[in-house]
Amino acid sequence: MTVTDIAARSYAHGWRLDPIVRSLLDTDFYKLLMLQMIWRLHPDVQATFTTINRTRSVRIAEEIDEPDLRAQLDHARTVRLTKKERIWLAGNTFYGVKQMFAPDFLDWLADFQLPEYALSREDGQFVLRFAGPWTHTSMWEIPALAIINELRTRAALKGRGRFELDILYARAKARLWGKVEQLQTLPDLRISDFGTRRRHSFLWQRWCVEALKEGLGDRFIGTSNVLLAMDSDLEAIGTNGHELPMVLAAKAESDAELRAAPYRVLEEWSGLYGGNLLIVLPDAFGTEAFLADAPDRVADWTGFRPDSAPPIEGGERLIAWWRERGRDPSDKLLIFSDGMDADTIAQTYRHFAGRVRMSFGWGTNLTNDFRDCDPRGEAGLVPPSLVCKVTSADGRPAVKLSDNPAKATGDRDEIARYLRVFGDAG
Amino acid sequence: MTVTDIAARSYAHGWRLDPIVRSLLDTDFYKLLMLQMIWRLHPDVQATFTTINRTRSVRIAEEIDEPDLRAQLDHARTVRLTKKERIWLAGNTFYGVKQMFAPDFLDWLADFQLPEYALSREDGQFVLRFAGPWTHTSMWEIPALAIINELRTRAALKGRGRFELDILYARAKARLWGKVEQLQTLPDLRISDFGTRRRHSFLWQRWCVEALKEGLGDRFIGTSNVLLAMDSDLEAIGTNGHELPMVLAAKAESDAELRAAPYRVLEEWSGLYGGNLLIVLPDAFGTEAFLADAPDRVADWTGFRPDSAPPIEGGERLIAWWRERGRDPSDKLLIFSDGMDADTIAQTYRHFAGRVRMSFGWGTNLTNDFRDCDPRGEAGLVPPSLVCKVTSADGRPAVKLSDNPAKATGDRDEIARYLRVFGDAG
Repeated sequence: MTVTDIAARSYAHGWRLDPIVRSLLDTDFYKLLMLQMIWRLHPDVQATFTTINRTRSVRIAEEIDEPDLRAQLDHARTVRLTKKERIWLAGNTFYGVKQMFAPDFLDWLADFQLPEYALSREDGQFVLRFAGPWTHTSMWEIPALAIINELRTRAALKGRGRFELDILYARAKARLWGKVEQLQTLPDLRISDFGTRRRHSFLWQRWCVEALKEGLGDRFIGTSNVLLAMDSDLEAIGTNGHELPMVLAAKAESDAELRAAPYRVLEEWSGLYGGNLLIVLPDAFGTEAFLADAPDRVADWTGFRPDSAPPIEGGERLIAWWRERGRDPSDKLLIFSDGMDADTIAQTYRHFAGRVRMSFGWGTNLTNDFRDCDPRGEAGLVPPSLVCKVTSADGRPAVKLSDNPAKATGDRDEIARYLRVFGDAG
Repeated sequence: MTVTDIAARSYAHGWRLDPIVRSLLDTDFYKLLMLQMIWRLHPDVQATFTTINRTRSVRIAEEIDEPDLRAQLDHARTVRLTKKERIWLAGNTFYGVKQMFAPDFLDWLADFQLPEYALSREDGQFVLRFAGPWTHTSMWEIPALAIINELRTRAALKGRGRFELDILYARAKARLWGKVEQLQTLPDLRISDFGTRRRHSFLWQRWCVEALKEGLGDRFIGTSNVLLAMDSDLEAIGTNGHELPMVLAAKAESDAELRAAPYRVLEEWSGLYGGNLLIVLPDAFGTEAFLADAPDRVADWTGFRPDSAPPIEGGERLIAWWRERGRDPSDKLLIFSDGMDADTIAQTYRHFAGRVRMSFGWGTNLTNDFRDCDPRGEAGLVPPSLVCKVTSADGRPAVKLSDNPAKATGDRDEIARYLRVFGDAG
């Protein structure tokens, strides 16, 4: 007897849309932590976020149909927090802390909707601009990136045969499991999924998270994706991002205020959060400048997330700094999350083992590594370096210098000013 | 909305048996060709078939529960030819020939059921004996082997998690597709699936056949599995097997008749079938002896299937023989089917390209290669060299010498006699 679910098949014939983002929690945990701070301390700041494809050779606007992009973005704007999600945010323990999110913040979040977007095209790229209150525009970063990336996947795989897709995913699964087995050899590994923004697709990210849960056991400490954390009973992982120092820097009224901005972020952050959330992201305007001027209390924070320097070099620099400041690095935590893959994770782990606590955030190379997987050998599945950055705050341009010049963003004159203020030691 | 087919789930709770063999056509095509000859020319011969596990280290009776084996064998005995199958056998063209199967043979086959079996245990092995009319016992060979092999698979995978199985099959698919890509580099390849008897499972064989169809296109000329050929609109591939010369040899009344038996098979065969079916299986009692005594008309047959010599060495010997007999080898066909895998296929193909027509029968390494696929790294998925051979005919022992001493079967005294008659040049 051949069994076909006729209702399901019939439903499939009439699909209007297969939504990519179906929950406000399908975002990175750090966005919610930052959002609560923005909502509490900077409710009136206007901030514009803009997508930037650093991989210019990938002409996204020629791969994706604009109506498809608009349909997904429009759908994402209809999504609201569900009752179950709100109850979970209120009742769950994050980093060992109860009631991480205040009731008044959750009341406000219950009515939250993603704000309007402006879509234009420039030189084969889509440019998405989200202008408005920082409390709203900030929340577009992850869904906007996830939507564009998954639409690229769908475009690349459109019209492929059932069998070709079977091979593609079989290879990708085999590939990821090979990495899992490599990581199983690292006894005290602590690793988490940071791959939401650049994922191949939601369903693939979910599979990857299940794979790490199954294969790495306690070594897998959680996922940055709040929805997956909720659905799979995993820890939600994340701290803070570059938008905080970038906005406060943009709003600075003087060079002195600009220089102080990154440390003001830390004060505000530690006023709201503590414990394991006291992780410093040091590279927004160059790690060297940050360390040189850092008040001594920064050395009391739990750790650093070096996000643009090579991991071993960057980690050594931070260990040396803790020593200079008279702190014992073996109590401290380094979170490596910039372009990591199984090889570099293993290498970094072995390099620092016993000298410092480590944790790894595994992004693109976890949730979107389809190298050598496509039976057609086409390039459509190679993810571009697509970001969504804050580009202005209260009408003033926002800048990021980074330790990696390829990651710098912002207006040229402003970059020159920041380099004068922070130096270009990195 | 979470959709679960409640009826399907409920049905799964109550499964009595998941049958391995569900069709009389789930067998190798050569069995049907031989069966028609046996039925037409040797309807009164009694022949006993016996399973032999050449891989003694694999203790099958300790892996599989006897009741499970009995349940599968009993179920296979209930299976009858369906009307659709009979119509297809009657109406389909095999090797370009219409009505390959005579109406009176199909009338008889319509009522066919697998005969009784005797199951015993010896030194950790199950021994299955099928005694009775050759027209019935012959048909147990393939289902008996397929059942034992798939029960081993089920035993090895029992209790595995959903995820572990996902990885296992993803790796196996990736592994097979790697081989497909290797074979795609051979422009004039002709290859078929010969993997029914030693398959991992029916569903896996079906997947492998679909993979070759998709990946090799015209290079994939068909499958020995009659059911898969019917269901996938592929050519059914096969000629004849060792049981024919073995039975006729066992029945020989004198050494002279014994020596003549292999050639008598060829006469009987060519009386029934012609064209591409005129393939000689030369090694039952050693290829050297066979070639030395062969009547000249054997050199007019389409080709040879060397089944136990190393392919290049065996092929060279046959090409030399055709030359000795004044025939042009480039018109002839060699079918390689003994333990082939992608590497040896490519090697053999390149060696003989342009000198002789070739075709490959790909068996165990197609349908049951799970090396390095099991996340647990266990050995349960390595297929043993399990065969089901004719062991006596009309009460006299049957013998196979082969070109490979490991493949010899039969009573020790009889083997000695056969060696005296045929020589031991191989």
